[in-house]
Amino acid sequence: MSEKGPTFKDIQEAHKRIKSFIHRTPVLSSKSINGILDIDLVFKCENFQKVGAFKFRGATNAVRQLSKQEAEKGVTTHSSGNHAAALSLAAKQLGVPAYIVMPETAPEIKKKAVEGYGAKITFCKPTLQAREETLKEVQNETGATFIHPYHNFNVICGQGTAAVEFLEEVSDLDVIIAPIGGGGLMSGTVLSAKAINPELKVFGAEPLQADDAFRSFNKGVLIPAGPPNTIADGLLTSLSSLTFKIIRENLDGIYTAKEETIIAAMRMIWERMKIIVEPSAAVPLAAVIENKYRLKNKKVGLIVSGGNVDLTKLPF
Amino acid sequence: MSEKGPTFKDIQEAHKRIKSFIHRTPVLSSKSINGILDIDLVFKCENFQKVGAFKFRGATNAVRQLSKQEAEKGVTTHSSGNHAAALSLAAKQLGVPAYIVMPETAPEIKKKAVEGYGAKITFCKPTLQAREETLKEVQNETGATFIHPYHNFNVICGQGTAAVEFLEEVSDLDVIIAPIGGGGLMSGTVLSAKAINPELKVFGAEPLQADDAFRSFNKGVLIPAGPPNTIADGLLTSLSSLTFKIIRENLDGIYTAKEETIIAAMRMIWERMKIIVEPSAAVPLAAVIENKYRLKNKKVGLIVSGGNVDLTKLPF
Repeated sequence: MSEKGPTFKDIQEAHKRIKSFIHRTPVLSSKSINGILDIDLVFKCENFQKVGAFKFRGATNAVRQLSKQEAEKGVTTHSSGNHAAALSLAAKQLGVPAYIVMPETAPEIKKKAVEGYGAKITFCKPTLQAREETLKEVQNETGATFIHPYHNFNVICGQGTAAVEFLEEVSDLDVIIAPIGGGGLMSGTVLSAKAINPELKVFGAEPLQADDAFRSFNKGVLIPAGPPNTIADGLLTSLSSLTFKIIRENLDGIYTAKEETIIAAMRMIWERMKIIVEPSAAVPLAAVIENKYRLKNKKVGLIVSGGNVDLTKLPF
Repeated sequence: MSEKGPTFKDIQEAHKRIKSFIHRTPVLSSKSINGILDIDLVFKCENFQKVGAFKFRGATNAVRQLSKQEAEKGVTTHSSGNHAAALSLAAKQLGVPAYIVMPETAPEIKKKAVEGYGAKITFCKPTLQAREETLKEVQNETGATFIHPYHNFNVICGQGTAAVEFLEEVSDLDVIIAPIGGGGLMSGTVLSAKAINPELKVFGAEPLQADDAFRSFNKGVLIPAGPPNTIADGLLTSLSSLTFKIIRENLDGIYTAKEETIIAAMRMIWERMKIIVEPSAAVPLAAVIENKYRLKNKKVGLIVSGGNVDLTKLPF
């Protein structure tokens, strides 16, 4: 893949392309959270997106651009998380086969979700090497197109559409904060936000215990994730060369948040807003809590990335 | 209090009166739940109401009708649940004092919520007798007006406004189901629904292990609740003479649901809709699950009564 990054025009075209297949998710706010933190916060709620996460935007944008020949052969990826479910459903809606490589240790609930969308699962040992090798085998066998969860032009464009909708609805934001894992959502968000309003400050939010993006951004070189140890299971991955480039060139900064603040933020959203968000989706609010003094008198938009949680393993 | 029940006109007036003080809560649906149950369901989400429960409607309607003299002396009630919080906030918004009698065993979180709304709490032993005696003392001392959680004309009118909004938004419902505890929400709902569309079937939903309304309705005499033993802690109370009369004369029937179905329904809403509902609020969906065959090809509206749960004591 070439390293040419998307432009805002690409994101606008993606939005036109996927609009009728995705949910336009609600923008919510909470007087009670605003009162506690004394900041004006609004939340773009991708936990209400199809498959329960923003990932459906990027996956849909990617599958909708397959050529007829590619579509016949299907799509593939390795993932045990939201991207697997998103790609499976996006493919199913188009009537295209999906082949998902999953570690055999993936939670039963994730396997069922992917199967429920009609994808074919190939299990592998739970190492990155095994995942990549198995993916290669699947590709060789099926000829399916690999849709990377974030190192992919079309996926990034799709993820950028959440910020487009957000700013259509709330035009007077001063700051937008999105979580950073592999950087797909962050890249799309910063490209959209800066194009729509160059004055807007855009920050990433990352668990302190998985702060590879923070360190990469500040050092100016891509540092791969060490063994991350965070409850925010959607943010374990490292940036790719493509997402790192976009982030380094456009982002205003990255905030980190401690594990206990992430859990407190998640609980605050559950209790006060009565909506279910996954730990990764609470990281931007956690970052706000730890950096309140920097955000005084600002109107701050947070992207809530998803709502897929195992209810039997809650941190409270 | 006279036993004259409210009319639909009283509910319409209540709606005009409280409209600007309450949230117009969203109506949501879930393709995934509809697919699992093969029924067309829509949910009126009072978990997003102020204080997290429909109770704020009735409390607001009651306090907004106090005379100037009454308002000066304030309002009082005994409750450890959503009505206490609702009355406290409704009173606070009007600048009226609220005196809440609470059992000393009430959960810390409920005490804090009520205190947070500026109400004065008087603690008592956790028996109905102690609650009633303490309430009398508070009334004697303060001259405050007692706002009963459901045996109250104005409260019932307020609760009936949820169904008004529901049917404004979804005009082609065949069935509405609401949970029954003391019967305030159920009474208001059936009065509104039957007035707006006499063809509409209206059912109550009650835990099998707290089925006093079911037994009262079917016997035609008011049977007080035995010692109820259900996770649906909002539905422990018995009907009053007033709510029983309205329910007996208007309701099409009452469905019961087993504890395990209530828990499964609650979990289904959390996992599929990504919203937080309390166990009582899941009882209508549980009733649908147990009575699916009766609802084939119907469009069914469920009133989600509230979303206040102790996250450290979940049943999953």
